[in-house]
Amino acid sequence: MSGVNSWQSVRAEVLHRIRSREWAPGDAIPHEADLAQELGCARATVNRALRDLAESGLIERRRRAGSRVALHPVRKATLEIPVIRMEIESRGEAYDFSLISCAERKPPPTIRARFKAEADVTLLHVVGLHMANGQAHALEDRWIDARAVPFAATTDFSKISPNEWLVLTVPFEGGDIAFSAAVASPDEAETLNCPPGAPLFVTERTTWRNEITLTSVRLLFAPGYRLHTRL
Amino acid sequence: MSGVNSWQSVRAEVLHRIRSREWAPGDAIPHEADLAQELGCARATVNRALRDLAESGLIERRRRAGSRVALHPVRKATLEIPVIRMEIESRGEAYDFSLISCAERKPPPTIRARFKAEADVTLLHVVGLHMANGQAHALEDRWIDARAVPFAATTDFSKISPNEWLVLTVPFEGGDIAFSAAVASPDEAETLNCPPGAPLFVTERTTWRNEITLTSVRLLFAPGYRLHTRL
Repeated sequence: MSGVNSWQSVRAEVLHRIRSREWAPGDAIPHEADLAQELGCARATVNRALRDLAESGLIERRRRAGSRVALHPVRKATLEIPVIRMEIESRGEAYDFSLISCAERKPPPTIRARFKAEADVTLLHVVGLHMANGQAHALEDRWIDARAVPFAATTDFSKISPNEWLVLTVPFEGGDIAFSAAVASPDEAETLNCPPGAPLFVTERTTWRNEITLTSVRLLFAPGYRLHTRL
Repeated sequence: MSGVNSWQSVRAEVLHRIRSREWAPGDAIPHEADLAQELGCARATVNRALRDLAESGLIERRRRAGSRVALHPVRKATLEIPVIRMEIESRGEAYDFSLISCAERKPPPTIRARFKAEADVTLLHVVGLHMANGQAHALEDRWIDARAVPFAATTDFSKISPNEWLVLTVPFEGGDIAFSAAVASPDEAETLNCPPGAPLFVTERTTWRNEITLTSVRLLFAPGYRLHTRL
């Protein structure tokens, strides 16, 4: 075979061999230099193709041991998590945030566990509603460790949502995200202006720095919300 | 400032300047070589730190114009989408797939639109239940264009779920994913062994190659399912 000179055509050839089981799950893939010679292209072209297949989870690359066909292919998608105001405004809709409550409180045990906090800790509890074109978009229920987040206790969250303020001012290291489904309780239904029992998309995020939990948030999206991404 | 020699400490310094608004949103970030000299480290170290900050959405890098502080920071997370059998078995649970129906059918208009198909097209419609330790895990409702996916029409989906068969044998180029919430209809509730009206997490994926839609699937997860990822 010759004349293969784009990385996309190298990728197509490798995919064909994987798909036909010429290269079966777990099999080693030839060295890049050998493949490049066989396919009549530059080694960098093979490298680019294998990198792409590794990113999509079809092959596994090891530092010294070379590449092999993945035993358990895992598709990967990148999820972008914009500030809610940006997400709404990028759709051409008017954004508004309505602060419902903001107070230092003793958290319930499930929240306390996320902060790995002692029994008598108090955390900043902020609840507010994100709105798009005057309609309820998402109910934000957030806890912040004011000892770990400077200025949180003195910020006026009726002027800027905690979602936006934290992204703009607090660098963090890592976070856990969970997506799930819930039905609207009577209170939530009233705030979100939907029938009780309506299906709600839920995002829960806990973010930390230096192993200290900074904030944990639950976002309840009004019925009809869809989170989109691409493979 | 001197003695900064890990890329993590360069990142921390850059974050500090962004956070303190010394470098405000939209501001240009100094050239890598200048920063390296100022911080007393190798240019590659600065490059590594800026790359990391770009990946997490806090700065924007342009090929010629250098880097600047992001106007609209977007957090990014990588979502791994394993084969459902692998996901269940990796939790140490027993996996089973129960085929409910498999037939060539005329799709409803919403599905036909996803395949950009003519009015009289027939597609392969496969419905089945993924189970974990004998309990309902997810109801798969899938349409496949058998003209675009070789062997789909002759594959026995009581032996392997279409989810796993497609990942293992059909390379694709791209896909759309949407996550949302729904409540269980009476039929879905019976199949998933939950009360009607229970909240269900929904994944919809449409995948294509060469602009031809190969398959479109709706997965309804039993109540309690959570999709996890990390920031």
